[in-house]
Amino acid sequence: MTETIHTTSTEQGRREQELTERVVASFENTPDERLKKVMQSLTKHLHAFVREVRLTEEEWTTAIEFLTAVGHITDDRRQEFILLSDVLGASMQTILVNNPADGNATEATVFGPFFLEDAPEIPLGGDIASGATGQPAWVEGTVLDTDGKPIPNARVEVWEADEDGFYDVQYGDDRVAGRAHLFTDQDGGFRFWGLTPTPYPIPHDGPVGAMLAATNRSPVRAAHLHFMVTAPAHRTLVTHIFVEGDPQLAIGDSVFGVQDSLIKTFEEQPAGTPTPDGRDLGERQWARTRFDIVLAPATA
Amino acid sequence: MTETIHTTSTEQGRREQELTERVVASFENTPDERLKKVMQSLTKHLHAFVREVRLTEEEWTTAIEFLTAVGHITDDRRQEFILLSDVLGASMQTILVNNPADGNATEATVFGPFFLEDAPEIPLGGDIASGATGQPAWVEGTVLDTDGKPIPNARVEVWEADEDGFYDVQYGDDRVAGRAHLFTDQDGGFRFWGLTPTPYPIPHDGPVGAMLAATNRSPVRAAHLHFMVTAPAHRTLVTHIFVEGDPQLAIGDSVFGVQDSLIKTFEEQPAGTPTPDGRDLGERQWARTRFDIVLAPATA
Ligand SMILES: [Fe+2]
Ligand SMILES: [Fe+2]
Repeated sequence: MTETIHTTSTEQGRREQELTERVVASFENTPDERLKKVMQSLTKHLHAFVREVRLTEEEWTTAIEFLTAVGHITDDRRQEFILLSDVLGASMQTILVNNPADGNATEATVFGPFFLEDAPEIPLGGDIASGATGQPAWVEGTVLDTDGKPIPNARVEVWEADEDGFYDVQYGDDRVAGRAHLFTDQDGGFRFWGLTPTPYPIPHDGPVGAMLAATNRSPVRAAHLHFMVTAPAHRTLVTHIFVEGDPQLAIGDSVFGVQDSLIKTFEEQPAGTPTPDGRDLGERQWARTRFDIVLAPATA
Repeated sequence: MTETIHTTSTEQGRREQELTERVVASFENTPDERLKKVMQSLTKHLHAFVREVRLTEEEWTTAIEFLTAVGHITDDRRQEFILLSDVLGASMQTILVNNPADGNATEATVFGPFFLEDAPEIPLGGDIASGATGQPAWVEGTVLDTDGKPIPNARVEVWEADEDGFYDVQYGDDRVAGRAHLFTDQDGGFRFWGLTPTPYPIPHDGPVGAMLAATNRSPVRAAHLHFMVTAPAHRTLVTHIFVEGDPQLAIGDSVFGVQDSLIKTFEEQPAGTPTPDGRDLGERQWARTRFDIVLAPATA
């Protein structure tokens, strides 16, 4: 990386640059080469930021107070540093860096804080809701490799918020709802009943929420359904699908997780429309969508 | 600032750059122009760091855990975020940016966490020790403006650690020792008895200490005596003087506060050498040093 810093005078610029170089040099004896590289790069970019904006001492104090508040609201149930990384796009940038485009492989997006290890297994065509409220949505697709070959027995984890915008784990009781895993059939196919996703805000009653408010940014995430798909010899895919027509897509997803390729049509079905599996939904409307998934090889 | 990012492929680079631009654009409606500028610059540099080092998801998790630990050790008495800023040189860079060189004005350095508002006043020639142990040091100098004109009645605050490397406030009792303020005389002169400074480590039993250990860095600060000098119509000067010959100067000050112009000779005086003010130090060795101070005008 090359940088051009515009400073008030040559002598001033020399003093600032010399300090940066001194700090970079202080990491020179780091035994771990990777840690050395990370700390030296972090130093350079941090100093370039301070110099570029001519950070005032009052602003520095505000930054220390902000980070302290982020630290103090963080506990086993609330991770405000992850929220901070999310709303600055650092989480999504890390995802991009680690999941380079590989031919036609499906794009990854942020993991989010609401995954659970032990979600129940459902059969193909089963229902993930378990009491989570919302409009039923039939979701089907095929898991393929980058050569178009079906991947049988791939593990498909899915999880989502209910129509009130809450995940099961946010209710403070022991419910497990709106999440499950299933396995693809011999043709790589999967199908299940989920819920049509609805937008929800990230927790915004803390310092990160205050920052979003001060910058006129919405805390709301575009409506989405989470996927994690694993299969031997393939790169694990963590992604979402989004809902075409969701107005939040235009406003902007608060954590920058949207990729155009992940926006899917949820076709509204009038009440009474026959369901793919013969399920009787009575007077309820439902929706259907298709998400075909391509996994990159593990060594990509 | 212009940047050249080297990425694995043009398409990959385009996706990463597009994400950065999307996050920058999300701050576009910030009502406060200054906040907008700061957040957009922070975003650019943070993303450039993630992209440059190709931050792994495991490293991202380590960073979140590190910041969480920094937050959790921080309380009313311990400010680990300031330590973090200090050891990354961000505090000193902020000092440099806000205290540009102004002719022959004395250079500033870091404030540190150990200043107290209500240190006692001493007369010219008084002793700041109040029971703090260490070798007596006679410190004298003149406060001048950049035209060489003496500044009478300037307020000179001084504070330092004892010979065990601790400030009074670190003992957990109510002692006030090793700190005082005094005022310059009609010729801008000041003089007082302090202690010959000794090196001490910053608190290094927390996550910042662990980071210093992992990078083979010393937590020790070069020996120093703190000054804060205020006078009407002049820029307040926060600085230190350092001790010529202190071995830590070669190893490196852990918070990068050293400027060559601030390294002073503390001349060792054999026991029995007459003192400037006739004080009887018995069999004790003492030292003497001189620090002439030039204050920049307030509007610089
Ligand atoms: Fe989510
Ligand atoms: Fe100090």
